[in-house]
Amino acid sequence: MIKFNKALKDIKIYEAGKPIELVVREFGIDPKDVVKLASNENPIGTNPAIAKVIRANAENAHLYPDDSMFELKAALCSKFDVQNENIIIGAGSDQVLEFISRAVLDENSSVLMSAVTFAMYEIYTKQMGAKVHRTASHEHKYDEFMEAFQMHKPKIVYICTPNNPTGDATSKEEVLAMIKAMHKDAIIVVDAAYMEYGAAKDARYAITPKDLLGYENVIYLGTFSKAHGLGGMRVGYGIAQAEFISELYKMRPPFNISTLSLAVAIEACKDDSFVEESVALNQEQIKRYENFANENGLKFIESYTNFITYLLDERLDSTKISDALLQRGVIIRNLASYNMNAVRITIGTAKQNDIFFKHFKEVIA
Amino acid sequence: MIKFNKALKDIKIYEAGKPIELVVREFGIDPKDVVKLASNENPIGTNPAIAKVIRANAENAHLYPDDSMFELKAALCSKFDVQNENIIIGAGSDQVLEFISRAVLDENSSVLMSAVTFAMYEIYTKQMGAKVHRTASHEHKYDEFMEAFQMHKPKIVYICTPNNPTGDATSKEEVLAMIKAMHKDAIIVVDAAYMEYGAAKDARYAITPKDLLGYENVIYLGTFSKAHGLGGMRVGYGIAQAEFISELYKMRPPFNISTLSLAVAIEACKDDSFVEESVALNQEQIKRYENFANENGLKFIESYTNFITYLLDERLDSTKISDALLQRGVIIRNLASYNMNAVRITIGTAKQNDIFFKHFKEVIA
Repeated sequence: MIKFNKALKDIKIYEAGKPIELVVREFGIDPKDVVKLASNENPIGTNPAIAKVIRANAENAHLYPDDSMFELKAALCSKFDVQNENIIIGAGSDQVLEFISRAVLDENSSVLMSAVTFAMYEIYTKQMGAKVHRTASHEHKYDEFMEAFQMHKPKIVYICTPNNPTGDATSKEEVLAMIKAMHKDAIIVVDAAYMEYGAAKDARYAITPKDLLGYENVIYLGTFSKAHGLGGMRVGYGIAQAEFISELYKMRPPFNISTLSLAVAIEACKDDSFVEESVALNQEQIKRYENFANENGLKFIESYTNFITYLLDERLDSTKISDALLQRGVIIRNLASYNMNAVRITIGTAKQNDIFFKHFKEVIA
Repeated sequence: MIKFNKALKDIKIYEAGKPIELVVREFGIDPKDVVKLASNENPIGTNPAIAKVIRANAENAHLYPDDSMFELKAALCSKFDVQNENIIIGAGSDQVLEFISRAVLDENSSVLMSAVTFAMYEIYTKQMGAKVHRTASHEHKYDEFMEAFQMHKPKIVYICTPNNPTGDATSKEEVLAMIKAMHKDAIIVVDAAYMEYGAAKDARYAITPKDLLGYENVIYLGTFSKAHGLGGMRVGYGIAQAEFISELYKMRPPFNISTLSLAVAIEACKDDSFVEESVALNQEQIKRYENFANENGLKFIESYTNFITYLLDERLDSTKISDALLQRGVIIRNLASYNMNAVRITIGTAKQNDIFFKHFKEVIA
């Protein structure tokens, strides 16, 4: 009998948003009638410039990617005014989170995060047998973080801004205050997966990799999955001081993104207009969700992202509502697994949102 | 100051085959004049049926893949006559190797492998701070493995057949003998990345996942990267008993292959004719490499793969030869980092092989 590592006993597996295929299979709904507002995918779809690059590279599936990622790093260097040695590429920014956990955590260490934040922080921590500490609030509050930091001496502090799955954000001023207080003694991960939306909404929340590069042990994470509309391609990045990046490189498997993913990420760096279009649509449509909530007496968390979190009161149950919508072909994210009676809805296109409101109204009636 | 885990001190980073882009950049050679025979990519290129699937999915880059991988697993179930719960998908079979290491190794454990074999076994072991034991031969010899097994009590035993980067293989009879002797007390990884070539060459070397499924703690690894010609798409799989697979699942990050990779792997399962064509070309062209070696007084290892390893004598230096070829736009793999004065050459198309022989003859003259 093989003994698996002790840490494995305590690992919950991440529950992904339900794919369209599953709803089609389980409920016999026509794929074109399924509206998926569960995974914060870009509702505009794939940037036509990206689709063109994919088609142009369709004959390159047999070739391994350039594992130095020379061109992609050059594009990110120019986009963010940083150097090649400051960058590590991951299969999604998720994978950079995994590298960080594996580089510093063990069974005697712990991490610190807000009460409700990205689920993978906990999973990667548990994989290492380390302990998770959470503050009381889902917002990243300085006092709560400092108190917990001093008490637990965590090796990693996660600041997810804007925060997923809640949608709130932490201002640059507050983030820098937390970094200054903690960065000498812990790794501070600033997970900025939704930053394009937050920065466009309010400049005080805009944080760039360059803003953080002066601090040792601080890493900025970004992704092509959200505003760039490349969720299916699995490309993200970490930006930090060179010494930190070179340690993370020891955990990176070769060829960790596909040849096509590499090609599209390079293209995405060149095309700001798609991100602008995505953000503009989001800003326009998210107002409808706020108005709907106000008109129907629902509470929500002010969102700096491409999704909105509706907080349900005791008359409504997030699991029942999510299940009822699912049977109607509308996929949203139930936050019950985060111990919240709440649902997270990705802001869709005008048409997708029409369909959501129609069904949601009936379901909560 | 952050203390990185002790294991990181001892990790060598995997040296990937040099990409075409690098040769173009460094030596100013036209990409169309570069011949890459370094990474065991399929020289036929991308299967036209695969390219078609990529083009058909070019607009799906924004959508996360079905994380249950329902269709791909169904295709593999039918291909190998196994059940859904026997399968785990990795970003290349590499990633399954990583899951295994992370699930069982720690600083007090060790692994066993042949003297010269796939480099990632050692790297994933070192990432966990565990120790690597090697037998004396690059071939997988029963007596050598049993002696080392009894001495070191490794938690994982790697059997790479056909073996990379040497090209030799171990017969099914020998593999089963080793499994029977060791599987109760260790995980046995049968890495069959090149199996399509080995099985076609000699039926006594053919091993299927089903052949091994009766043994607990034995896992069969396969890949779409070689005979299926999908190296750039990063899809491989592990097949084992359900209890074993469910432990490995705890180390799998969600969405670990891209949406396009998932689509092409499903297609690849349907199309045996491309694999047959790939194997046939390989069998025809590898004879030229054997003949060339015999005519020029070079030793080689009999190959059960899509590459051949030339063993150089003291008059020739593998590093000098590889560098000289590189400057001529011919990329092969120098095995100096494996402590062998040898070069590994991927069997190309007739035309690529013509170019190789022309330059190689001049370089060794």
